[in-house]
This record gives sequence, structure tokens and C-alpha cells, in this order.
Amino acid sequence: MDIKELVQLKQEAENHLINELLPFWIMRMTDEKNGGYLTHFDEKGNDTGEDEKSLIAQTRCLYTLSSAHRAGYGNGELAEIARHGVDFLLNKMWDNQHGGFFWMLDRKGNVKNNQKIIYGHSFAIYSLSEYTLATGDKRGVEYAEKVFDLLQKYGADTMYGGYWEMFQRDWTLCGPGSQGGDRKTLDVHMHLMEAFTTLYECTGKEVHRRKLLEVIDLLLNRIIHPEYKTGVPQFYKDWSVAPQIKFDIIWGWDRFSEEGQKGNATDNTCYGHNAEFAWLLNHALEILQDDVENYKGLFRIIYDHTIDNGVDYEFGGVFVEGPHSGGVYDREKEFWQQAEVLIGLLDAVILLGNEKYWEAYKNVHRFVFDKVVNKGVGEWYPLLSRRGEPIWTHMGHSWKINYHTVRAMVQSIKRMEKLSK
Amino acid sequence: MDIKELVQLKQEAENHLINELLPFWIMRMTDEKNGGYLTHFDEKGNDTGEDEKSLIAQTRCLYTLSSAHRAGYGNGELAEIARHGVDFLLNKMWDNQHGGFFWMLDRKGNVKNNQKIIYGHSFAIYSLSEYTLATGDKRGVEYAEKVFDLLQKYGADTMYGGYWEMFQRDWTLCGPGSQGGDRKTLDVHMHLMEAFTTLYECTGKEVHRRKLLEVIDLLLNRIIHPEYKTGVPQFYKDWSVAPQIKFDIIWGWDRFSEEGQKGNATDNTCYGHNAEFAWLLNHALEILQDDVENYKGLFRIIYDHTIDNGVDYEFGGVFVEGPHSGGVYDREKEFWQQAEVLIGLLDAVILLGNEKYWEAYKNVHRFVFDKVVNKGVGEWYPLLSRRGEPIWTHMGHSWKINYHTVRAMVQSIKRMEKLSK
Repeated sequence: MDIKELVQLKQEAENHLINELLPFWIMRMTDEKNGGYLTHFDEKGNDTGEDEKSLIAQTRCLYTLSSAHRAGYGNGELAEIARHGVDFLLNKMWDNQHGGFFWMLDRKGNVKNNQKIIYGHSFAIYSLSEYTLATGDKRGVEYAEKVFDLLQKYGADTMYGGYWEMFQRDWTLCGPGSQGGDRKTLDVHMHLMEAFTTLYECTGKEVHRRKLLEVIDLLLNRIIHPEYKTGVPQFYKDWSVAPQIKFDIIWGWDRFSEEGQKGNATDNTCYGHNAEFAWLLNHALEILQDDVENYKGLFRIIYDHTIDNGVDYEFGGVFVEGPHSGGVYDREKEFWQQAEVLIGLLDAVILLGNEKYWEAYKNVHRFVFDKVVNKGVGEWYPLLSRRGEPIWTHMGHSWKINYHTVRAMVQSIKRMEKLSK
Repeated sequence: MDIKELVQLKQEAENHLINELLPFWIMRMTDEKNGGYLTHFDEKGNDTGEDEKSLIAQTRCLYTLSSAHRAGYGNGELAEIARHGVDFLLNKMWDNQHGGFFWMLDRKGNVKNNQKIIYGHSFAIYSLSEYTLATGDKRGVEYAEKVFDLLQKYGADTMYGGYWEMFQRDWTLCGPGSQGGDRKTLDVHMHLMEAFTTLYECTGKEVHRRKLLEVIDLLLNRIIHPEYKTGVPQFYKDWSVAPQIKFDIIWGWDRFSEEGQKGNATDNTCYGHNAEFAWLLNHALEILQDDVENYKGLFRIIYDHTIDNGVDYEFGGVFVEGPHSGGVYDREKEFWQQAEVLIGLLDAVILLGNEKYWEAYKNVHRFVFDKVVNKGVGEWYPLLSRRGEPIWTHMGHSWKINYHTVRAMVQSIKRMEKLSK
């Protein structure tokens, strides 16, 4: 590894974070009139006026601000904006009658969808814990623990283990199929690992540690592919693999066909998730003070799969998804997968010390800075063609916000600092 | 079936309940000085003075009083004594700091053992729900729900399903082995089914119904023997069968050898548990308004195993335990097993309508009334030889109280009434 090159890449990331990404959000996200955050911006960074505030976007913004503040950025300004978002979350999104956060409000704070969705609640735990760690304001962890308790009461499947994911307002479990009440996903369980890690970091409580260990066990022994260690997206309640369908309440991009089912619905893995899972697991082990040596073999398998199949050595960047055994189905480029693979590959360099991960990192780094970043505006394009032409061009949306982009910079800089010493 | 004989047996049971059992307790159980119930009595019914009040004995007394009141006995007096016990439970046994009930107090209400044991908490849920159903006093269900919520938060194993059973005061999970922190038992999960049934009957809440369905699923598909449908006593966390060991905190009779492990530790089933499981399941199905037809095949297997192996056709009554595939290891007679088999066999007569279950019922009924009842005193001997000579002679103790005896009479009378119409 060329240290000069490393330092250059680190500076490029720092410059992007400090002078582009954070300013993009600081100057537009605060909704002074109605509280909370504005989250819908077009290619030029103009507010599109879309009348919604989603639980995911509000909590992810809170995480972004809190974690960047904790990492030393923003001179206190980020903590102030974070507090503004917590006020909105607790005063407007929290359901005082049944507990938990509503799924979707309008800008003024009226409820548009009152369902209780665990995906969103995992980000509530994550961001509110991070907020308390960053600022010392105890309201964050108080509500993070309330959500944790509700999740244990209503969410856990005491027959097969794991968590149910889709509930009505009163925490009645949703019906089967596209309502999602009979499914379990990689996505939710991975984000619960992320959430419980930060909750445990914040509280040090045994029950938070125990549930973190249990969800790691689920991910390792139920959710990732037994042979390839790649993530399997959807399961039935007994952890048999379910065809990957679109839920009525979606939380991400709709990349499904008309029928609401993926092509290759039962043999599909996503490189961004795999790398994200690996580095989040490594971070969890760190917080748990567990021995990473026991997991290096696993990390090697996951990162080798990522660089052997997910990285595009012709046009740069990371593909969307492919079969577990190797190969690619979808060669477009999603912004968040680039973000997660950046962090993961730097983890691989540090943990496994092989030059090939560094080469792959540089590939993705270049693709991000040359193609994905919307120059002069400062945020990332959400979806690009294989060659790097923007397909979707909005900068902010209920499901596309600053969490992946800012976190990728904060975490990558931290890792490159470590490598440069 | 000879109806005249049935009516005679019913009258014998009614006479025992109304003129012997209930008076035995009504006249001695109320601790006017310290609150709660006195629970330690010798063969003559004299207070032994043992200085303890166990969570199990206090909650079981509460269940006994509440359920007998609800069934129409006692002219209101039982409800009054029940209220007296609830006061003690909520004011003295409840842990205001960490939630949940202490395991053991002395008579005055000082804490002797502050651990949180799920076996005892299952009886807290059961008795407090029954108390509210019987009296309308909402304090019962309020605390039953608090215990349910704590159990879901701290007790559920979100990896393998089911519940952990042994905790420290602050709900930290106990260590492995004889501390019990790595084991799961038939006993606790069966009593949780019983508890959730009455909780759901009381609240009608979806989450209580759902957890009841899940624990039934666990009992049917993890806990009873896949072939013989007999109960397997102990498991490791992943539901592999564990050798039956004695825990540091015991909740029943110590019938273990010096080594703290049962003979035949991994091939052992107990007839009283099997019959109790079957009739409690049938009752749960009734409360759930589920179709019993789907379970008749299962009930037939369980009751056939009970009468073919557990009933002593030579000396009368029910043996202690034997191998799953049939046969007997221990031919002594425990009081509670007689009690549960009485109810179960009447269920079998009603559900399956076969004369052989009635003949077996009459056998156990005669053994109970001729040998187990301590004549002139009114309660049952806890343990007898195969021929019916008392081995242990106390009438009350932290682990031997009125719950099995009174419930057996209340439930048997109810079933015989149904059969006599």
C-alpha cells in the first residue's frame, strides 16, 4: 500500500465530508416551521415539496448528525440540529397511546401511516442511542430503551426465534404475504444488530448485550448462506428461505418487477448488504470486546465474495446483486452499496491485510468520487448505470438520505487514519 | 358408564372439597399478623413454624382461592382471603427496583432469596389473572401484565425460541449447569401455557393470544417426544435433550440422587405432567376457540400412554415416572400426579369417550380417597409408597400446597357434572 496515495484518498474523503456533504444537509435539512427534518431534494438540491416525513429518514438524519458530531465534526452545530430532530421525533412521531413511532407523517406532523414497522424502529434505537452518546442528552437512550422493550414484548418470535417485522398501530401482527407479517428479513435483523450494538455501547446493560449476542447468532446461523456466507434476503417464520417479494410497506427502492417478486427470488444476494453485515459485525465484536480472531475466516469469505463478484473492474464501483455461488444479475450501481463496500473493504485491509482488498477499495473510491458524487451539489446520485450515468437524480427522499453517505465518509476516514499510522 | 356410580364419585369429590379441603385452608392459611399465607403444616395440620413464604406457595394459594371462588364455592369468603394474599404479593414480594417478584421471603416479609425465577412468575401471571377474573379487582391483571412484559423483555430466547428460566434479581441471566441459566424445561413452558391461557382469557389482547399460540407450538414441536408425545423434562438452549439435573433453586420435590442427576436422566417422562399437559392444552384450545378435533389423535396417544404405563392396576393410583417408550422406573405415588391424572382422565372420557379411561379414572379416584387423603385432617399426603402407605406426611410446605388438590376437585366436579347430563 502506497501511504502517499492513502493520504490523498483520505483527504479527498475529508474534503467531501466537511466541505460538501455536511454543508449540503446543514443548510437545508432543518424544518424551522414544522420541526424535524426536510428530506426531499432534487438533483440541484432544491426542496421538492413532497409532503412526508418518514420514520426512517428522520431517524437516519438524527444518526448522521449525532455520529458526525461524536466523530468531531461540525463544531457543535450538528448537535444542535440533532436536538431539533429529537424534539420532533418525541413530540410528533411517538405514539402516546400504544407506544412506538408512527411510520409516516406529513411535514406538519400529522399521521399519514400509523403502522409500527421494525425496520424503522431499529433506526430509532440506533439513532437515539448514538444521540445520547454524542450529546449526553438522556432523552435519546430513554426512548431507545422504550423501543427496545416494545420490540421484545411484541416483536420476538418465541417459537422460531428472531423478530416479526410488520405491525398495526396497536402492535397487532400484520397478515401474511405482502403485508409481511409472516416474513423475516436479513435487512431488519442486520439493522437490529447495528442498533443493539450502539444501545449496548450506551447503556452497558446485560439484557442489551444478551439480545445483541442472540441476533448475531441468528445472523450467523440462520440468515447468512451456510456455504457462501452471503446474505439471504427473506425467510418464512421457521427460517426456510422465502422468495423475495415486495412488501406493501417498503423501506427502500422499488427494484421489483410488476409481479412484486424478484427475478431469481430465492437465489439472490446483495454485495452492499454483505459488506455492511461484515463491518457491522466487526464493530459489534469490538463493542462486545469479543475476539475478532475467531471471525477472520468468515470475514475473508465474505470480502472475497464481494471483490470477486460485486466489484466492477471494467467500469468501477459495485454491482447490485447476484447468485450466492457467484456471478452477477444486476449490473447497475446503487449509491448505498458503494458506501457500505467502502467501509467494508477498509475493514478487510485492516483485518486481513491483503493488497487485493486495497485495490478493490481504490476502485470503488474512484467510482464514487468520479461518478456518484453530484459535483457542485455535494450529495450522491441514488442510482447509476453500469457505466456511471445517473438514472435517478434526486438528492434526498424518504428512502435516500445522508445516513449511508456521511457514515461512509466518517467511517472510512477513521479507518484510513488507522492505516496511515 | 354407570351414571349412579358417576354421581356417587362426584358427591364424594364435592364433599371432600367443600367439607374437608377448603375448610382445612380457610381456617389456617391467613397470616393475620404479617400478611399473606401460612403454608407449612404437619400431618395433623399444625403450623410447623418454618420461616418462609415462597413465591410459588403464595401465588398457588391465590390461584386456589380465586378459582374456587369463581367456580362458585365459599360464599365470598375465598375472595376475601384472596385479596389478603394479593396485598402481600404486591406490597411485600414485588421488587420495586427491578420489577418482578422475589423468590423467597420470611414470614415477616423480609427477602431471603431475591432471584427472579420464571417458574414462580408463571404462577404469578396465572393466579393474578384468575384473581381478576374471579373478583374484578384490576390490580391482579395489572401485575400479571407487568410480569408478562418483563418475561418477554428478559426471558425470551430470540435465537432458539422459548424462555430462559433462571435470573438474578436484576434479570441478569444465571450461569449454566445447576444454576439453570442454560436450560429450558417442560415444566416452565407448560406452566407458561397455563398462565398465558388465563391471562388471555382475562385481557383478550392479541399479544397474549400470540404468545400463547407460540408456547403451544413449542410444547408440541420442541418439548414433547416426537414419537411418544410424552413430556421431555429438560433441554439445552437449542432444544437438544439435556440430562435431567437438579437446579440450585428447586421448585418441587427433591427426588434426585446424591449426584444431582436423575437415573435414566435422558429417557424419563412423568405421567402426571403428561396428563396435566393434555388437559391444560385442551383448556387453552377452548379459550382460544380453536378446534379440538385437530388434537384428538394427540390426546389419545398421551392418555393411552398414561393408562397403559402410569396407572397401577394392582395397588391403585399413578406411578411417578418411566421411559418414553413405556414401562415404569419409579412406582411410588406423588400426590400431585394423582390430582392431574384425575382431571386428565375425565377430559379423556369426555373427548374420546372410551370406557377404558373411565375405568382408569375410577382406579385413581379410589386410590386418592382411600389412601392419599389424610382422613380427619382433610389435605393429601404428599408422597406414598406403591401400596399407599404415607412416606412424607406434611400437609403444607413451600412446594406442597392446595393448588393441585383443590384444582383437581373443582375441575373434576365440573367434568363429572358435564358427564352426568
